[in-house]
Amino acid sequence: MPGNTWGHSFRITTAGESHGPGNVVIIDGVPSGLELSVDDLLPDLARRRPGQSSIVTQRKEADQPRILSGVFEGRTTGTSIAILIENTDQRSRDYSDIQKKYRPGHADYTFDAKYGFRDYRGGGRSSARETTVRVAAGAVAKKLLASVGVEVLGYVVQVGDIRASINDPANISLDQVEANMVRCPDAKAADQMIELIERVRSERDSIGGVAEVVATGVPPGWGEPVFDKLKADLGKAMFSLPAVVGVEYGAGFAVATARGSENNDHFVYRGGRITTDSNRHGGMLGGISSGTPIVLRCAVKPTSSIPMEQPTVTQDGEATTISTKGRHDPCLLPRFVPMAEAMMALTLADHMLRQRAMAASEG
Amino acid sequence: MPGNTWGHSFRITTAGESHGPGNVVIIDGVPSGLELSVDDLLPDLARRRPGQSSIVTQRKEADQPRILSGVFEGRTTGTSIAILIENTDQRSRDYSDIQKKYRPGHADYTFDAKYGFRDYRGGGRSSARETTVRVAAGAVAKKLLASVGVEVLGYVVQVGDIRASINDPANISLDQVEANMVRCPDAKAADQMIELIERVRSERDSIGGVAEVVATGVPPGWGEPVFDKLKADLGKAMFSLPAVVGVEYGAGFAVATARGSENNDHFVYRGGRITTDSNRHGGMLGGISSGTPIVLRCAVKPTSSIPMEQPTVTQDGEATTISTKGRHDPCLLPRFVPMAEAMMALTLADHMLRQRAMAASEG
Amino acid sequence: MPGNTWGHSFRITTAGESHGPGNVVIIDGVPSGLELSVDDLLPDLARRRPGQSSIVTQRKEADQPRILSGVFEGRTTGTSIAILIENTDQRSRDYSDIQKKYRPGHADYTFDAKYGFRDYRGGGRSSARETTVRVAAGAVAKKLLASVGVEVLGYVVQVGDIRASINDPANISLDQVEANMVRCPDAKAADQMIELIERVRSERDSIGGVAEVVATGVPPGWGEPVFDKLKADLGKAMFSLPAVVGVEYGAGFAVATARGSENNDHFVYRGGRITTDSNRHGGMLGGISSGTPIVLRCAVKPTSSIPMEQPTVTQDGEATTISTKGRHDPCLLPRFVPMAEAMMALTLADHMLRQRAMAASEG
Amino acid sequence: MPGNTWGHSFRITTAGESHGPGNVVIIDGVPSGLELSVDDLLPDLARRRPGQSSIVTQRKEADQPRILSGVFEGRTTGTSIAILIENTDQRSRDYSDIQKKYRPGHADYTFDAKYGFRDYRGGGRSSARETTVRVAAGAVAKKLLASVGVEVLGYVVQVGDIRASINDPANISLDQVEANMVRCPDAKAADQMIELIERVRSERDSIGGVAEVVATGVPPGWGEPVFDKLKADLGKAMFSLPAVVGVEYGAGFAVATARGSENNDHFVYRGGRITTDSNRHGGMLGGISSGTPIVLRCAVKPTSSIPMEQPTVTQDGEATTISTKGRHDPCLLPRFVPMAEAMMALTLADHMLRQRAMAASEG
Repeated sequence: MPGNTWGHSFRITTAGESHGPGNVVIIDGVPSGLELSVDDLLPDLARRRPGQSSIVTQRKEADQPRILSGVFEGRTTGTSIAILIENTDQRSRDYSDIQKKYRPGHADYTFDAKYGFRDYRGGGRSSARETTVRVAAGAVAKKLLASVGVEVLGYVVQVGDIRASINDPANISLDQVEANMVRCPDAKAADQMIELIERVRSERDSIGGVAEVVATGVPPGWGEPVFDKLKADLGKAMFSLPAVVGVEYGAGFAVATARGSENNDHFVYRGGRITTDSNRHGGMLGGISSGTPIVLRCAVKPTSSIPMEQPTVTQDGEATTISTKGRHDPCLLPRFVPMAEAMMALTLADHMLRQRAMAASEG
Repeated sequence: MPGNTWGHSFRITTAGESHGPGNVVIIDGVPSGLELSVDDLLPDLARRRPGQSSIVTQRKEADQPRILSGVFEGRTTGTSIAILIENTDQRSRDYSDIQKKYRPGHADYTFDAKYGFRDYRGGGRSSARETTVRVAAGAVAKKLLASVGVEVLGYVVQVGDIRASINDPANISLDQVEANMVRCPDAKAADQMIELIERVRSERDSIGGVAEVVATGVPPGWGEPVFDKLKADLGKAMFSLPAVVGVEYGAGFAVATARGSENNDHFVYRGGRITTDSNRHGGMLGGISSGTPIVLRCAVKPTSSIPMEQPTVTQDGEATTISTKGRHDPCLLPRFVPMAEAMMALTLADHMLRQRAMAASEG
Repeated sequence: MPGNTWGHSFRITTAGESHGPGNVVIIDGVPSGLELSVDDLLPDLARRRPGQSSIVTQRKEADQPRILSGVFEGRTTGTSIAILIENTDQRSRDYSDIQKKYRPGHADYTFDAKYGFRDYRGGGRSSARETTVRVAAGAVAKKLLASVGVEVLGYVVQVGDIRASINDPANISLDQVEANMVRCPDAKAADQMIELIERVRSERDSIGGVAEVVATGVPPGWGEPVFDKLKADLGKAMFSLPAVVGVEYGAGFAVATARGSENNDHFVYRGGRITTDSNRHGGMLGGISSGTPIVLRCAVKPTSSIPMEQPTVTQDGEATTISTKGRHDPCLLPRFVPMAEAMMALTLADHMLRQRAMAASEG
Repeated sequence: MPGNTWGHSFRITTAGESHGPGNVVIIDGVPSGLELSVDDLLPDLARRRPGQSSIVTQRKEADQPRILSGVFEGRTTGTSIAILIENTDQRSRDYSDIQKKYRPGHADYTFDAKYGFRDYRGGGRSSARETTVRVAAGAVAKKLLASVGVEVLGYVVQVGDIRASINDPANISLDQVEANMVRCPDAKAADQMIELIERVRSERDSIGGVAEVVATGVPPGWGEPVFDKLKADLGKAMFSLPAVVGVEYGAGFAVATARGSENNDHFVYRGGRITTDSNRHGGMLGGISSGTPIVLRCAVKPTSSIPMEQPTVTQDGEATTISTKGRHDPCLLPRFVPMAEAMMALTLADHMLRQRAMAASEG
């Protein structure tokens, strides 16, 4: 079975390459009656877009989405929604380097091994360009979630050895995130991150980091044990994004050194409902949402494409060197934030609808 | 859609609770002709079994599997395979505590929120007892993988602040892992881990840790972009297991502080094939296996059930306290290893068959 | 992808062969809180059971189901339900005939071609014995449907050239169907059918027929265009049963000679709701339930196993003859009825839950 | 779960309405290396196109497909293929009739019941216009099948009471089918059918019919028991098409009056392989292809839209009348043929890839 579909009850299927005519997503499962227009898609696309600031790639893309179906008189009809984003920057250039040499850290070799050959223009399907339509679909999922009071927000918490200080993940605002071009709500850390990214770029290198993504308003009960636990599907969602090599919830890897007595969050009755007095568990217990904010972090590797010269081999196994010419992100994190939000929103929308079907029988 | 099925081409569906009559798995997609008997299932079940050593729960379970279908004259027929493991330890006891109180760190509250009520005996379906049949099915997947030269092995690399020293994840043997009851191939660290676990237990508490799971022999080309990347499905596999709150590949969260120039593994031609000179990428590029060993680590939280008294609330929101009576694991890691191996094997078997279907057309 | 799973939101996965230890079904997606016990499964199993009357096979099977999970204190928990029916009639006999010769009309040859070898005892997985657990699962689906007012009932309308006269498919009762052993509510036709079946049997032959299956109480709105239309899924459900070679809805093949002006049912307002003044459309328009009774018919071929000697070949292609020894149904129809009801109920339960998830957004 | 996806290993997902911007299909699972261009899609689109002859609807559509992804340098890359067909005939007209009145035989009422409201322009998603992209995707499936020697061909065998005489379904050529505008290979019957259709049209009415669809070259072994039998999936494929109310294989409903001794096809050894001496079974046994031609027939109802005035009700239940203005097909059969071929090809391509994954283990 191929792998270009995400979700079950709320599902998206995507197609498109870096330098082909365009990228397409079909969203199937959006309930009817939701207000939707192209304007709903633009803000997140702008947050993902190349060229948005001085610390991201300067590739030029309009990223103008076109809704081809599923919306009538401003509302979703319940039928499948197709969105097309044409690639405008398909300028002809010389790809002979990529065509024959395997770029370190990229999927050139593995695509060749899997498919026998590949679209070598800008990475083809392995390029992060395919996430454009994920972000557009994620904006639809966010609208659906907003209708039941759920909000998803991500931000950068680490670039290199610069770490943000976040008091309460559930109390960060979009404005705080968008206040600077690195998308870190800790203004002081943000300045240092930007400085680091600029230094790294000037050194013809790249740098990794960590993003945190938070969902608030998720009611208790979403997630389908034993395999489609919410933490399992959210984990898959994040790992499906390019460059993600680690995911953790709540206390995360720090649980390794913790005792049960300190790691367990205690149930309390507060504000008319049962909740926990702390959130080391990250919003899910037994893989089902607990009603507390869902908090996860993704480790994002440094951009594989760097201007610096690196050793590699050709398709025929001959030793050579390669260096990335042209545009690249010195740090993926600022543009990663809307992608991660999109995947979280798509996953939550799916589980929201799945829970509707599983709701206790009244009979 | 409910969530008790794993995989697509090689898929398992499970049922069963902690204190019901038994646990069942149906394995669908096993190619015909594979030699299979109950004996193939026993070793991993023994590694998962309660009561196997002094540092795990002392619950008594025979864990004797029965193959009900899909095998004829010692070979798989290509039809679905059902395996039943009856629960022998269903002794009557007093569950009134669990029934009305929410155990910290457990799924009691979230199950109630999701389903309206729950089987409160020993955690019901949220108990790790359901992993028994995952391990049995994983043993079948391991046999299929072995037929193409793939091996899966896990071990413990951290308990509390004790860290093992592992030179080469691809060169650990099952004998090294099974040489001690904590399943850590670093003998010296193993002794310290066992000592720590015993101390923690004597303090009526529990402790977390980290396990590493490795697959060797996976050919380049497994994994289905863009959503069913191998790293995405393996990540989901691990997060579907109880108590896992973090997963990372290769260099993992350490990439956050790395430069691209140091993080990129370089392609080289060695031993007649293209590979990389290091394995910070953990065996997958673009979510597709690269031919190098797949290496991941799981952060496992300390057991939520502890004999120590903890504050909590009842179903009605009244403050109370609870302490676990009877049997529990002071540290989940030793028994977690075969569970994680099973999920990795099931995922790899699925992608092995998926790649068969996707193989390049000869026409 | 293998094929032993039915449904999406309400799904069953089955395993088991004719002469293996037993047949198993895992039902996943049953909402919590539904009252359920083994007693709910027995009536339909009795209607399907061999040996129930003089005109069916005399194989002896207790068909005693055991619920292994998913039910607690008499109610479903929302987790997966496993049901096991052990095979009691596994008496040792000589299968050398079947092992080497291909029985006409059976799946012996195609199973060998597909899997390389097969379990030749009684047809293995290709035996209708696998429908036992479908019927058990169907009984669970019927209970869920009954909780929203939906009932499913089937009956025989044709055996050979004997045709029943049915005035109104929506007004047949279970009592009428069960009033005779051929399950035809037209008592006079039933007598003739029984007489025909007995004559055919005495001639060492078998005979085909047609069953009609009806669902009443289905609200308008079930079915998921464009591929998972209700008529598409019900059609697949029926064709998944052994021996079914034709399916038609409402007017069925008779539409070929009809004009649009006579075939269109007209919408009317009656009893406080919109409906149609006739039901040539069989209860679905655009593949979505219209609120009128769903009516379909299945053509069931004559039993392939006949005592009469027939020409065939061996696995090696040598000409030979074969005749069925022992027990067989001279006509499949009486026992087909509960199987068809089960598949219709399972399909409707799935679409009932799917529609819940698709219900119009309130936001 | 929504329903706009077909297939598992070879899968398509579609979107689009009658009068929206366009229809889109994403094809996922096409193996890499298959030669493919827009020219491959045009012949079948032309066979489906409105306005192709005097006996079909005169709506004007260019039906010009655009391949947006998944093809590079004339070959498929193994990644998902998106095809867009824009609607050119979106002329503004008065839909107030359809908007408020329920057209007999159409899905207007059921869409309203399901989704709460609908795109009333030309039927929206319930229009057969959505089959445009099915036919485009079917052309891709046909190319893949041709690479292993499988061919799919359909034709009309009945219109009203005019029945074609077909000697051997496996020996009809595309030229014979395309020799006349009704797509009936029996030239004499074709003339009568055309005459009947023209008479019916002049009477402001419509007429039903039957199409036969045949696949040759399918090797034994395709189909996945027990639920995804090839006959089950092909049956669903046909019933997913608009206006299909009956499907039968081989002898079809005629089996009802047959004895087993006459209905069983006998195995023989011929031409170096095992086959049957007749093909009453229609090419599948036990739901698995037997190596003989697959033969099925679909009953297609008379077009619901007729110029003649018919009684109906408004959304509010008020009695009224309606008559179709403008373009309609007096008989659906000629344009149904390429749609049915497409669905058969898509289903066979899926099972071809599924069988690859299920092939017997060599280990």
